[in-house]
Amino acid sequence: MTTELAFIEALRRLASHPAARGLNDDCAVLEVGGETLVLTHDAMAEGVHYLAGQDPADVAWKLVATNMSDLAAKGAEPLGVLLGYMLGSDDARFLAGLEEALAHYNAPLLGGDTISGKGPQVLGLTAIGRATHRPVPSRAGAQAGDGLWITGPVGAAMLGLEALQSGPNSTGAGSLAQTSESYRRPVALLAEGRTLAPHVSAMMDVSDGLLLDAARMARASGVTLAIASTSVPIATPEARRSEALRWGEDYQLLFTAPPSFQPPVAVHRIGEAIAPDDKPLLVDRKPLGEADGLGYEHH
Amino acid sequence: MTTELAFIEALRRLASHPAARGLNDDCAVLEVGGETLVLTHDAMAEGVHYLAGQDPADVAWKLVATNMSDLAAKGAEPLGVLLGYMLGSDDARFLAGLEEALAHYNAPLLGGDTISGKGPQVLGLTAIGRATHRPVPSRAGAQAGDGLWITGPVGAAMLGLEALQSGPNSTGAGSLAQTSESYRRPVALLAEGRTLAPHVSAMMDVSDGLLLDAARMARASGVTLAIASTSVPIATPEARRSEALRWGEDYQLLFTAPPSFQPPVAVHRIGEAIAPDDKPLLVDRKPLGEADGLGYEHH
Repeated sequence: MTTELAFIEALRRLASHPAARGLNDDCAVLEVGGETLVLTHDAMAEGVHYLAGQDPADVAWKLVATNMSDLAAKGAEPLGVLLGYMLGSDDARFLAGLEEALAHYNAPLLGGDTISGKGPQVLGLTAIGRATHRPVPSRAGAQAGDGLWITGPVGAAMLGLEALQSGPNSTGAGSLAQTSESYRRPVALLAEGRTLAPHVSAMMDVSDGLLLDAARMARASGVTLAIASTSVPIATPEARRSEALRWGEDYQLLFTAPPSFQPPVAVHRIGEAIAPDDKPLLVDRKPLGEADGLGYEHH
Repeated sequence: MTTELAFIEALRRLASHPAARGLNDDCAVLEVGGETLVLTHDAMAEGVHYLAGQDPADVAWKLVATNMSDLAAKGAEPLGVLLGYMLGSDDARFLAGLEEALAHYNAPLLGGDTISGKGPQVLGLTAIGRATHRPVPSRAGAQAGDGLWITGPVGAAMLGLEALQSGPNSTGAGSLAQTSESYRRPVALLAEGRTLAPHVSAMMDVSDGLLLDAARMARASGVTLAIASTSVPIATPEARRSEALRWGEDYQLLFTAPPSFQPPVAVHRIGEAIAPDDKPLLVDRKPLGEADGLGYEHH
């Protein structure tokens, strides 16, 4: 990952435009004609970001959900998407999942490009949204004294992937489709993001693992985030709490808000922002940094 | 290509939003606030859209130019781009070419995503522009009686690719860098597009070959385009005129304009729009359709 991180850093230097917050997970914010646009692009490669042989309808769903989750973290409502599509094993199934996801998020397909390729499939989606609250929440606004909150449990996607990888024979009561749903069909929290946007000091979606993403928020904000691990809602058995805090793809929203914050939706307080310490995180009073195995880099 | 065309048709049906003109080569047009946004996304795969082993700086340049050319055909000025980048053989070279191209077009990098992949490199770029003239030119506005025009010669990219494929030993007086430049470093005609936009009835860029793209304009507009082949400026020897008219990647602008049109920039009249006939094209009075080998489908 060193090469990639160096490349991203170089891109960030190139992206000196004030709107260019949008490299790897964060969104670009662009003022146009009295409106504030929020733009994001996510790419996914077969065998890296999704399983070879996975249902293309689920792949389409996740591609849309990933981008919609970026908009959700900005409190934005989708205006539409552009698709970069490499023809794959079952384009009709992909299209079915795409249509279902776009209908779910009320996000029209505005355009895109289809290509033939010679290797594993690579997909890209650009989502364009309209900010519903200004200033647009960023991951950089947390202040010491703010509470740290999350919208719901983490670890569900991890269990879903395990079910998918184990196959139908391993499932107990539930069908494979049900037990793997959290991995196959993550849901972006657009409504929650819009509702929370006016109240938060910082917000981002948890795509790469709660601890890793919290460390990023801490770094961007110049604070340390103190987390009480047992206060984090998890979808797994208690014995797997540590994994659940490090696994990603649940697309919950992580945010900070001032002490006076009264939750307008059901959310969970998991800690607080404190003055910056050596490490970006303090988990159960133990300092943790990026070198301490915070999560999985899903690039 | 049948699969791909069927997929594109299915996507078009899905893209029922009024803004969704933007599938494969054309741009999406979106009204936001008091502005009209023009959005396009192009994807390129190694071994399909560029040569494996080609200088990554040239690949970056072409990726940007292709998208800028889509904006040019709409008379739009760039607001920025989002990059979907799969790490490749020389990311620093890619970055150098990207920076050069973005500076050339004054198009800031707003965001994007970098990923690792397991096969040939696949790249995507989304460009966002602001329309400078409304209504935004489309490929569908040609009317019988309009003149058909092109901004400059075709066939230069073909010669450039041949030089690149032949290698340094085959070049005569010019260096390989010079003789291959038209293929490696195409230039999008943004200024020309903005100047022409208020005058044209239809406009598009020539990316897949003059005849093939003209046939698309004819189909979209419901006219037949009559072309006098010898009036088309070419960059090749006369013996290769037929190839030059069928090769793409020169990124000239093809447009129609009413009979009263007075060119504000240097352009070449190559024919006219007439009432629709059986075939979309009439080349030197010979009817030609898509089945007649009009060009190369660079998908």
